[in-house]
Amino acid sequence: MDQADIAKFVAASLGATPFVQSLGGEVLEASKGFGRARLPYAPHLVGDPKTGVIHGGVITTMLDQTCALAVVSALNTFIPFATLDLRIDYMKPAEPYRDIFLEAECLKIGREVAFTRGIAYQTSRDAPIALSTGAFMLMRSQLGEPAKPES
Amino acid sequence: MDQADIAKFVAASLGATPFVQSLGGEVLEASKGFGRARLPYAPHLVGDPKTGVIHGGVITTMLDQTCALAVVSALNTFIPFATLDLRIDYMKPAEPYRDIFLEAECLKIGREVAFTRGIAYQTSRDAPIALSTGAFMLMRSQLGEPAKPES
Amino acid sequence: MDQADIAKFVAASLGATPFVQSLGGEVLEASKGFGRARLPYAPHLVGDPKTGVIHGGVITTMLDQTCALAVVSALNTFIPFATLDLRIDYMKPAEPYRDIFLEAECLKIGREVAFTRGIAYQTSRDAPIALSTGAFMLMRSQLGEPAKPES
Amino acid sequence: MDQADIAKFVAASLGATPFVQSLGGEVLEASKGFGRARLPYAPHLVGDPKTGVIHGGVITTMLDQTCALAVVSALNTFIPFATLDLRIDYMKPAEPYRDIFLEAECLKIGREVAFTRGIAYQTSRDAPIALSTGAFMLMRSQLGEPAKPES
Repeated sequence: MDQADIAKFVAASLGATPFVQSLGGEVLEASKGFGRARLPYAPHLVGDPKTGVIHGGVITTMLDQTCALAVVSALNTFIPFATLDLRIDYMKPAEPYRDIFLEAECLKIGREVAFTRGIAYQTSRDAPIALSTGAFMLMRSQLGEPAKPES
Repeated sequence: MDQADIAKFVAASLGATPFVQSLGGEVLEASKGFGRARLPYAPHLVGDPKTGVIHGGVITTMLDQTCALAVVSALNTFIPFATLDLRIDYMKPAEPYRDIFLEAECLKIGREVAFTRGIAYQTSRDAPIALSTGAFMLMRSQLGEPAKPES
Repeated sequence: MDQADIAKFVAASLGATPFVQSLGGEVLEASKGFGRARLPYAPHLVGDPKTGVIHGGVITTMLDQTCALAVVSALNTFIPFATLDLRIDYMKPAEPYRDIFLEAECLKIGREVAFTRGIAYQTSRDAPIALSTGAFMLMRSQLGEPAKPES
Repeated sequence: MDQADIAKFVAASLGATPFVQSLGGEVLEASKGFGRARLPYAPHLVGDPKTGVIHGGVITTMLDQTCALAVVSALNTFIPFATLDLRIDYMKPAEPYRDIFLEAECLKIGREVAFTRGIAYQTSRDAPIALSTGAFMLMRSQLGEPAKPES
């Protein structure tokens, strides 16, 4: 497998983890430091039964995962990594019964840390539901990788 | 219903939202600005099938919800509120097959915003899985409430 | 004064607060939800004497202030406001002896809260020193303003 | 110098960086993962001339520095490190003409990252001005240090 295949394979795996599957999330794209995913509305995701609004944690999970797609697709070789921290700003509630789209970019890959930004929206990127900023820890030492950063 | 009853009722509701139920989370306590919850291990919550480790988004959701318990139990009267922003620091992966405990405190109730801090752990508070800091927006205007803060 | 004048006046005030003046920061622009500022290098801003690198807190302060410019210029009328929370991601150290540029946008103005994003860079926006995400509290009640949000 | 001496020396250095000196901040303690500092009121630190309230960036800088004290004093040997990200929650404005106290603890030292929490207050820890959560990157590779974490 070349690098593009590896990224494709890992992206597929990220979309197939049990929890993402139980949410019903779907990976749309993972290439060159950019990730995109879709989350269809579903009753078991509801956070507020009075309004039918999806739980914020669902959106956070999908943003986290989409940022991971962005990181994977920005790496030259696969390196194990984990979310170090994540900040979510909830800008408005998601509208019930509509898909949610998630997009993320990997802003920088350092030796130890990758930085990401993400957005969740429904009709338009200009009306975001939530924004995320997150740092991911790259565990190069688990691979015996040399100390040179990617960029 | 007096204030304690209302808090109890709302706390019960928070534990019974569809998404929290689909996670299997359980409210243990909500009193005087403090919330506590439990999340049993379950295969559909797994984020990494190779290790069986729970997805970070599950822990974020439960921390968010536990902070909400802390806010509800700190209010003198019920006010609609929503998570404004949330930061999660993931300090180590959760161990598979073990319960996760969540605790949160409401540090301050202002007119518009309540501040919270939370912790997720398994065996001991001294070995946290994750920490959270979050701000919740209090929508007093939806109630025609006067402008005096609680504290 | 019309609205544009007010925004100009307030932006000038933000650039003239004692602490921003003691840093040597300068407002370049504040219009339509966008703010821009410049910070020249100065020895008293150094955080690490061995390298001459500017202290991260200097950059945070200037990002905070530039986000405030963005908020002011997004409001239709002046409303007192204050930073509620701020997250800074430091992506690389600032190079000594070079200007630092700060840019911020106000992403959303709600009734109680305005959301902002900022960037600090030297040569190019594509090589940021730091990114910020912050929420500002709008204190409309201090003005007896009605409950309608701007957007 | 033994380890305690090194920590003392580094703590003194942190208190003597040009920017911290230009703020007038003073290190009070740095031991066993805990840092404490004091910031006297001064006119050049003011963020809002109408009220005389200190600029939030001043408090952020001092919290950042106090968290660094906590990290230094938690390490067994000195390792170069840098702030990776920082979140500040501003809970109320600092009162003019009074000292501000800063306290921080290092919650965990991993191989690549140290996690910290801090508080800024004036009269009492129970009435915080601001809280911080921050991650610091440990640059062990700059020392050829082996991969074993401290704890």
